[in-house]
Amino acid sequence: MKDVYVVGGALHPAGRHYDKNIDDLAAAVLDKAIADAQADIEALFLASSTAELGNKQQLLGVYVLESLGLDKIPVFRIENGDGSGGAAVVAAYHALRAGEYNCVAVVGVDKPNDVLSNQQQDIYATTLDTHFERYFGFTPLSYAALMAKMYLKKYEYKYEDLARWAVLMHAHGAGNPYAYFRRPVKLEDAVNSEVVSEPLRLYDVGPLADGAAAAVLCNNKKKDGPRILSVTTSTNAVGFNARNEYDVLYSLEEAARSALKKAGVTPRDIAAAEVHDSFSIFGALALEGLGIVKRGGALAALREGDLPVNLSGGFKARGNILGATGVYQVVELAWQLMGREFKRVEGNYGVVHSMGGVDRVSTVIVVGL
Amino acid sequence: MKDVYVVGGALHPAGRHYDKNIDDLAAAVLDKAIADAQADIEALFLASSTAELGNKQQLLGVYVLESLGLDKIPVFRIENGDGSGGAAVVAAYHALRAGEYNCVAVVGVDKPNDVLSNQQQDIYATTLDTHFERYFGFTPLSYAALMAKMYLKKYEYKYEDLARWAVLMHAHGAGNPYAYFRRPVKLEDAVNSEVVSEPLRLYDVGPLADGAAAAVLCNNKKKDGPRILSVTTSTNAVGFNARNEYDVLYSLEEAARSALKKAGVTPRDIAAAEVHDSFSIFGALALEGLGIVKRGGALAALREGDLPVNLSGGFKARGNILGATGVYQVVELAWQLMGREFKRVEGNYGVVHSMGGVDRVSTVIVVGL
Repeated sequence: MKDVYVVGGALHPAGRHYDKNIDDLAAAVLDKAIADAQADIEALFLASSTAELGNKQQLLGVYVLESLGLDKIPVFRIENGDGSGGAAVVAAYHALRAGEYNCVAVVGVDKPNDVLSNQQQDIYATTLDTHFERYFGFTPLSYAALMAKMYLKKYEYKYEDLARWAVLMHAHGAGNPYAYFRRPVKLEDAVNSEVVSEPLRLYDVGPLADGAAAAVLCNNKKKDGPRILSVTTSTNAVGFNARNEYDVLYSLEEAARSALKKAGVTPRDIAAAEVHDSFSIFGALALEGLGIVKRGGALAALREGDLPVNLSGGFKARGNILGATGVYQVVELAWQLMGREFKRVEGNYGVVHSMGGVDRVSTVIVVGL
Repeated sequence: MKDVYVVGGALHPAGRHYDKNIDDLAAAVLDKAIADAQADIEALFLASSTAELGNKQQLLGVYVLESLGLDKIPVFRIENGDGSGGAAVVAAYHALRAGEYNCVAVVGVDKPNDVLSNQQQDIYATTLDTHFERYFGFTPLSYAALMAKMYLKKYEYKYEDLARWAVLMHAHGAGNPYAYFRRPVKLEDAVNSEVVSEPLRLYDVGPLADGAAAAVLCNNKKKDGPRILSVTTSTNAVGFNARNEYDVLYSLEEAARSALKKAGVTPRDIAAAEVHDSFSIFGALALEGLGIVKRGGALAALREGDLPVNLSGGFKARGNILGATGVYQVVELAWQLMGREFKRVEGNYGVVHSMGGVDRVSTVIVVGL
């Protein structure tokens, strides 16, 4: 099988982009990523979570190609909810490993701010089971709150311990030119922010943001980009009512174990991780799911020191760009390892965690320089 | 690279299934296909076009797995509009060729009858460009009518020549136990049916139907199923206003040329084809796009004799199950080649044409016994 490298990339600043359509955002980063890679692409894998419900568009990739004049390029749209970005990287990786193409682009795009806030939440909730969860008013936020409550109680943490996540994310995001929020915040501001779903407060929620990211992946090493060492996607097909614990990301644990094993990398080797912290509690649980800290140990580790997690600023500071986020994470991690537009991390291995729904599907991508 | 075989399959009868949810339809065929293949699956590739807009569900595959108790199976949802089914087979093929899995399932499902007819048409039209086509009232039907008008005029056919498509499809569909309509129709009934978009009449339109199909694909030959010899996906990224001709399926021509070449198969070798005839004119244009007849020759060939195309009954008689159709077609073709639940075709090679939007993306899959 052929090796796969991250040969080029581009990020659109996260934010509210009322002046651009969803295909404009995607086309802009795709164009930049192709120029960055200095390679022709032979296929496009497009990740989006809200293209239909938010933007009334199927087949989005074709219209992105049309605006760039790229005729005949095959297109595959991947939807794994807010984990679409990671899944699209995996689909592209499969095609390159099989030698079907030499270079392909993966574009992640979502534009939640095209609809009002209450509609955004309803669309986001379609990642839950529509008959048994969304229909009864559950949302990703309400599940996250439930999980946070159980976690804090079980391991005897104070809310303040959880609030440190936002402080760390904002400290990291301040150095990311593509982040939605680029300013540090104080612990007391996080602790005193309004409650949105007890015990979660405003600073525990990654803001939904418009954005797009693109990576060009090739199965020959043209430039100095890192190699994708392994990928694994796993699902949690156990309903909330039947789970053993409510403070474990099972889909991540399974994907991480397999992906790290295939890559021959241990949690100790991980120099940087970009994890799916759509809500602060998921950031803590993701550290545990990846095996970087033991179960229950994430917030203690956070209290004790600076963690090399979400140097992008994570969902809290970079923003939650839904199905696009996984592609952001891959490009961010590649650039962190290369010391490009980010401070160079000390070490050669990094992991991406891209999740769809509340612990329903997780993709782990292990990258090495 | 590893070879890929169609090892098992299952089809849900097309129709109006008010008593079942979309995930019920998908779970039922997935369960049957796994039993048929007598193989464990290691990943699920789920194709759907309308899961979000029609059924308010992202991440549909996870909930299908949940209802079967299949935990930890990775899931990838592929959306290429009404061409999702073919694209999902391609994504699965890539993964198997790369040796990432030994056996995977491809499930196609859509349930258009969960919404009213006018809403169905609006959802279907989101496969068009939402800013420049759908917004101004274009629909797949209106484009098909435009293309039919130009084709009939250019090649001096009468409407009656086009109406023969429906007669042939109903003749074939009468032998398909999974078809929506299983009765033959007379040419005069087709010719005298009501106009829905001049020159197209009711019998030129494949009825939107609820349904699901599943194929189990493996990269080792466990049973006597046919091999997937090649796959190609191509796009037409040229807007309607800028196209050279309005009676050519360019995305199909490109995909067919490439797929047949890779398989070492000529159009003359094709013993059976399942093509995307969502409207009768597309059936004629698909025969030409595949190279089975020359441009402009499809309706003359149809007048002259029985063609081995859409032995399932096609979209007109089997039904248009949107993003699921490509998976139906692969299973139907495999069974036609094997003489299983269909009359055995004379020959060993078949092709599937799965299209998204109006000539926006086409996948061609070449299968050999």
